[in-house]
Amino acid sequence: MRLSQIGELSLLEQIRKRFEKQSRTIIVGIGDDAAVLKQGDTNLLVTTDMMVEGIHFDLSFTTPFQLGFKLVSVNVSDIYAMGGKPSYLLLSLAMNNYTEKSFIDKFFDGVQRAIKLYGISLIGGDLSSSKSLMSLSATLIGYTKRHIQRSGARVGDKIYVTGPLGDSACGLMLLKEKIKKPVPFENLNAMQRARCKELRAKNKNSLLFALCPKLLKEGLPWKVVEPLLRRHLIPEARDPKEFVRYATAIIDISDGLLIDLSRLCDESKVGARIYIEKIPVSYELKKAASYLGISPIKLALSGGEDYELLFTAPANKKVKALHIGEITESERVIIDSSGRKKAFSAEGYQHFGIQR
Amino acid sequence: MRLSQIGELSLLEQIRKRFEKQSRTIIVGIGDDAAVLKQGDTNLLVTTDMMVEGIHFDLSFTTPFQLGFKLVSVNVSDIYAMGGKPSYLLLSLAMNNYTEKSFIDKFFDGVQRAIKLYGISLIGGDLSSSKSLMSLSATLIGYTKRHIQRSGARVGDKIYVTGPLGDSACGLMLLKEKIKKPVPFENLNAMQRARCKELRAKNKNSLLFALCPKLLKEGLPWKVVEPLLRRHLIPEARDPKEFVRYATAIIDISDGLLIDLSRLCDESKVGARIYIEKIPVSYELKKAASYLGISPIKLALSGGEDYELLFTAPANKKVKALHIGEITESERVIIDSSGRKKAFSAEGYQHFGIQR
Repeated sequence: MRLSQIGELSLLEQIRKRFEKQSRTIIVGIGDDAAVLKQGDTNLLVTTDMMVEGIHFDLSFTTPFQLGFKLVSVNVSDIYAMGGKPSYLLLSLAMNNYTEKSFIDKFFDGVQRAIKLYGISLIGGDLSSSKSLMSLSATLIGYTKRHIQRSGARVGDKIYVTGPLGDSACGLMLLKEKIKKPVPFENLNAMQRARCKELRAKNKNSLLFALCPKLLKEGLPWKVVEPLLRRHLIPEARDPKEFVRYATAIIDISDGLLIDLSRLCDESKVGARIYIEKIPVSYELKKAASYLGISPIKLALSGGEDYELLFTAPANKKVKALHIGEITESERVIIDSSGRKKAFSAEGYQHFGIQR
Repeated sequence: MRLSQIGELSLLEQIRKRFEKQSRTIIVGIGDDAAVLKQGDTNLLVTTDMMVEGIHFDLSFTTPFQLGFKLVSVNVSDIYAMGGKPSYLLLSLAMNNYTEKSFIDKFFDGVQRAIKLYGISLIGGDLSSSKSLMSLSATLIGYTKRHIQRSGARVGDKIYVTGPLGDSACGLMLLKEKIKKPVPFENLNAMQRARCKELRAKNKNSLLFALCPKLLKEGLPWKVVEPLLRRHLIPEARDPKEFVRYATAIIDISDGLLIDLSRLCDESKVGARIYIEKIPVSYELKKAASYLGISPIKLALSGGEDYELLFTAPANKKVKALHIGEITESERVIIDSSGRKKAFSAEGYQHFGIQR
């Protein structure tokens, strides 16, 4: 049997069973956003997340700066999702011999910008040549007095997210859609050219400008496009400090709201009810989705790579975040604007290609 | 400029300068076998090491069991090289959709065997699909009361290694030399066939037997071949506990004695004098090198992947290890059997292809 016939989730479950908690200093082992280790009077958090060329990123529309920044952010997001503070980073990079030195320099510019933003130190890593595509992996160590797992949600808790969903997936669609059909700069009118030049000047560390001619020409304004691309290419992780004292369970949305909510429910042995009308969808997503002819809500529910936090808190607490539903005993449903219920399942991205 | 024009060492040096010690909780940052973090009254050690298909391993003669075992061992070796005890492991694995489920199972058999051997727990990781070759990365956390860096060697210290060198490199040569020219089982005589069957039965978790017909036929006995292949395919890391209290500097020999001794000297700002006659070379290496028509001492000096520890200790201490030379003020020389000196430099394996 091949991995493509098993899928990531079931494979992970098997590995997890095989390496069940092996020592009493391990508070949380395989299966949450980060492992938790007892360390005197605090807890050590450790997570690792990789980005593989052709799977997680496409160098035809991703700059090395963005790659470096994003590799740090996706790991920070996992530490935040345990209620922790990120501290120490290690990188493992496999790149081929033909990689330009300037690529590495810009990659580390991105890493440096991100570690400054999050207050992290780079303490080590490994460099290897590669005979094929690029493969980047990071390990991040963090700390917390109180760790918050996926498994703490209780019936009656409210469900929250930290920001609009689907933007990243929509940004990726724009990039895939547009980058392959560039329109010559010459075909733009004078005003469009001027705007394009201005954008290029502003975005020295980015390839975003490669898109402008086409999108400007077709009438999707840059102020709509830019935040969507940004959310995909250089996402910032969401610090839970505003609500962490109330949170009963947290997970970061990396594979899509429905799949990650299902994971939280599985671990907490509960169900969930969410309201279509409460799912936060940005103005930019609505505009761009209409331009692309797709449903914004579909992207928000299962688009993936949002890197927003999804969490639960008791109903009586005042929480600064976007309320999208409640934890139930067992039913898992989405309620639409006319009050109709529809069951949901773990819909979103899985490696080893079972579904999308 | 491309990475192949810079080389790994100089690239690492640049990264290290850029991310110089950033916090006072970091005792050792980028540049040693592991990072060292202050953690109450003990020190946390963290290392990461990757294995990339086509660079570090060749699936035509490596079993998944061996891969899993070796990935753990090479990381344990880095923790041992800081004088520490390994504790917690994370894995990042990128494999393509066509990988057989049985491959993963056997890979984890190897991981499990190794973590049992070293007393480690697997606490997390990341799984990704890959559109090209396999890429495996591990992060290992360990602890030590007293960490031993590469930089502690003092003039007059004796230089030691923990075991014979060059075996792994010779094992790799045998594998590369022989696996590509298999001899049909049918061409063996009755005694050779019986021996071959017996070896296959013994080595269920291994592809070693694939070699036997050819090697048995050509007169290189299995008892010579087996330890060399084993050292390459399933190396065990060397625990420094017997001598750690005396050690002033330690490094593990992963890229070759001369390159790793040069690193130790660079960090300690000293030189070294080693004696050709004292370099430990196994009986098996001598036999196999003669069969292959190569110099055993060349393999021992710059073969790489030995995973023996190279360390220094004051001359007046009684140390259980193999004495190969002394630390000098600045000259770096090898002394041959007739007392002649020859300068040495950092000769061994570097990624991004500057030299071998």
